[in-house]
Amino acid sequence: MASPSPGNSITFRIEVDGARVSTAELAAVVAATGAEVTGFDTVESGHLGTVVDVTCNTAGSEHADRIREILDSRAGLRVRNVSDRTFLMHLGGKLAVAPTVTLRNRDDLSRAYTPGVARICRAIERNPDDARHLTIKRNTVAVVTDGSAVLGLGDIGPAAALPVMEGKAALFKQFAGVDAWPVCLDTTETEQIIAIVKAIAPGYGGINLEDISAPRCFEIERRLRAELDIPVFHDDQHGTAIVVLAALINALRVVEKKIGDARIVVSGVGAAGHAVIQLLHAQGARDIVACNRHGAVHAGQSHEHGHLTWLAQNTNPAGRTGTLKEVLSGADVFIGLSAPDLLDGADVATMADGAVVMALSNPDPEVSPAAAAEHAAVVATGRSDFPNQINNVLAFPGLFRGLLDAEAHEIDTPLLVAAATAIADCVSADELTPDYIVPSVFDSRVAAAVASDVKAAADRAGSRSAGGARA
Amino acid sequence: MASPSPGNSITFRIEVDGARVSTAELAAVVAATGAEVTGFDTVESGHLGTVVDVTCNTAGSEHADRIREILDSRAGLRVRNVSDRTFLMHLGGKLAVAPTVTLRNRDDLSRAYTPGVARICRAIERNPDDARHLTIKRNTVAVVTDGSAVLGLGDIGPAAALPVMEGKAALFKQFAGVDAWPVCLDTTETEQIIAIVKAIAPGYGGINLEDISAPRCFEIERRLRAELDIPVFHDDQHGTAIVVLAALINALRVVEKKIGDARIVVSGVGAAGHAVIQLLHAQGARDIVACNRHGAVHAGQSHEHGHLTWLAQNTNPAGRTGTLKEVLSGADVFIGLSAPDLLDGADVATMADGAVVMALSNPDPEVSPAAAAEHAAVVATGRSDFPNQINNVLAFPGLFRGLLDAEAHEIDTPLLVAAATAIADCVSADELTPDYIVPSVFDSRVAAAVASDVKAAADRAGSRSAGGARA
Repeated sequence: MASPSPGNSITFRIEVDGARVSTAELAAVVAATGAEVTGFDTVESGHLGTVVDVTCNTAGSEHADRIREILDSRAGLRVRNVSDRTFLMHLGGKLAVAPTVTLRNRDDLSRAYTPGVARICRAIERNPDDARHLTIKRNTVAVVTDGSAVLGLGDIGPAAALPVMEGKAALFKQFAGVDAWPVCLDTTETEQIIAIVKAIAPGYGGINLEDISAPRCFEIERRLRAELDIPVFHDDQHGTAIVVLAALINALRVVEKKIGDARIVVSGVGAAGHAVIQLLHAQGARDIVACNRHGAVHAGQSHEHGHLTWLAQNTNPAGRTGTLKEVLSGADVFIGLSAPDLLDGADVATMADGAVVMALSNPDPEVSPAAAAEHAAVVATGRSDFPNQINNVLAFPGLFRGLLDAEAHEIDTPLLVAAATAIADCVSADELTPDYIVPSVFDSRVAAAVASDVKAAADRAGSRSAGGARA
Repeated sequence: MASPSPGNSITFRIEVDGARVSTAELAAVVAATGAEVTGFDTVESGHLGTVVDVTCNTAGSEHADRIREILDSRAGLRVRNVSDRTFLMHLGGKLAVAPTVTLRNRDDLSRAYTPGVARICRAIERNPDDARHLTIKRNTVAVVTDGSAVLGLGDIGPAAALPVMEGKAALFKQFAGVDAWPVCLDTTETEQIIAIVKAIAPGYGGINLEDISAPRCFEIERRLRAELDIPVFHDDQHGTAIVVLAALINALRVVEKKIGDARIVVSGVGAAGHAVIQLLHAQGARDIVACNRHGAVHAGQSHEHGHLTWLAQNTNPAGRTGTLKEVLSGADVFIGLSAPDLLDGADVATMADGAVVMALSNPDPEVSPAAAAEHAAVVATGRSDFPNQINNVLAFPGLFRGLLDAEAHEIDTPLLVAAATAIADCVSADELTPDYIVPSVFDSRVAAAVASDVKAAADRAGSRSAGGARA
């Protein structure tokens, strides 16, 4: 059975016959089911008995159903209602539109709307760049998905993806004050998605592509970057790459190795794996071996997708062949962005001394973090219940804050590196340990640090290209 | 020169040498320029003089420039800064995204985002209708434009249209609690707009088309209504039609005539004119003559656009021909949705006794309201500075509130009539006068009344179609 988690927090409203069951016994009954009791509130109390809300983390809906049966079968207890805190949190959606102007009277209306607004429209018509100051474009990001690769759920479609995009928008606002809006598209056609994002772009200062499956995501991002004058960022690729690079910078500090000397094996050449490899390559990693389900990618193969061709040409300089397990032997760094349980402790034991393992498949990593820790010097996962959580929320809010503040037109590699370095530097030298290579997702300094360094990088890129087509 | 208006409110920050100019003189100087002083605030005061913010309504930016010159030329006065209250109100845009959940800690995050959100996604994947309860779709409306027919400004494009759409969204929220989001499209291709709106529809409970030029707006709305399962409403058409019908119901009460007996002349067969005619026709108006710039539309003509063919077949039963002025003679009702200054008082004088004139071209009506009032019993305009303002804000917020509350899939004519009747009935029999046929746009009862009656109409339509394709 999975572990109880706050994502499966359930509140049981229970009528308790006090003559037959004490509240202490009630708590024990719930705890005996394997649930973690997190709250206990008496909501009614009288001579006929009491009504108690027991809130507990469960392992999922089957577990919750079983707890209800156990409670109902006990003499003196009756479950009156079951509420699911996660569903309650999502009820009605997680975002609202908040006007920043109040329209109390006719004068307000005549400024915010007709006839006064006409002067604002004319100003933007004359100088389109004014939209960055006089409209929501100043602070808005579209969170665009087609619902084709959502979390670990796969192609669930745009409506089912909406709760994730709303959550993402909430994170944008909470961590960096960015107004993000979900754009869930009922099409998976590459050209159609490109055309739609181009068409809606006037209303946004940036585009965050999200949960679009590979290889379509590569072409969609490449084309939008070329054809739009606002930054376009596929978070599953570059958000992950930024945080992986940040973690690797600090992990290599812990084990006292240099990125240029490290032999790195990456499992997974989808959207995230590809972007991670490109960013590490740009940062000077020279010996990267990418593996897909057929083993090491090398120059001796022919590939149908362009991104695999790039990998074959730019990685694996020693021309290693063989399975993931085979090429892992002697490696300094393992980065998994693929599938659960591909490796065990014995495989990690074949790596070089001071090995770094990032097993980021979620929720089930490529190798058990406990088993990996027996042989590796540093272990990171995508999970919140182990040390060193690699979580994109460290990157994207601050990144877009910096891009919007810089009124940036595009994103380049130095900017991604600036974000990664800012995250890494949030862990000071004396804080750095094998169990603390990345800051907490709730460390409020992170987004501000990322925003500041990204804005500086964007300003530098802007001045480099000044006088060019973007001027 | 145009009149001073709050849409052109300017604040002058003026250094005043108190030895040379008193504040009373300063106020007189500003007033003498023709501006209306609305505020007078001393912001600094010392032995060297005072600094005063004078806020005044001007007639426009040329007027404001001239006021500055006059002030600067006066000994003892120096304008330090000029700020434009309308521009200040729009700075940074007029909307923000406000998460309705707070992510204080890891437990919150695990419910609002991963891993807990996966259960919400799966629930919607199993039952797509749950998106109406578990996502922002419950309360969101897309305000979609291509910027091709914005206010009286014409085809100014999507970026310049954004301030209007933001204002519209602010009105949606303020008057009816609807979360509306601007979708400004960088394309005017009919098929492309249809495809885009269909693609973004999963995230919205309704679509409000706005400021899309005729005749494309007819095809776009028709197709989207046929192909989407959420209500689609072109406000320029049906919002106007609802409020015109509301005003006409009450105007005919004032003059004690019946809609079926009234001879009605409509000037303008664009988006608004067409929709007004269709709604009046559906409400039993039998003698409508539509006029375009060539005069009366009649069955003896051939027409290139489908909507003109419909007009020729369904209006002008007497087959009247001639100019607008000619067919106006003897008419009971004139409705102008066309261009300024087409008529004068003498034309209105040719109408029947108890004539109703709605001259809705904005900002300059088809006939001067003062001249019309000399001959007509009831006069309405689109302007806020005359009685009987015909303003769509009376309709669209409450209409979508009712549609969202009913979880409506479509909009039909009885629903438009329900909205019009609700607005008309906000003016009670003893309140009704020739100068008060529609409620104020700031009458907070209106949106609630419209929402309630629209929801009832949508519920009736839903039960009529139950068991059909929408079930």
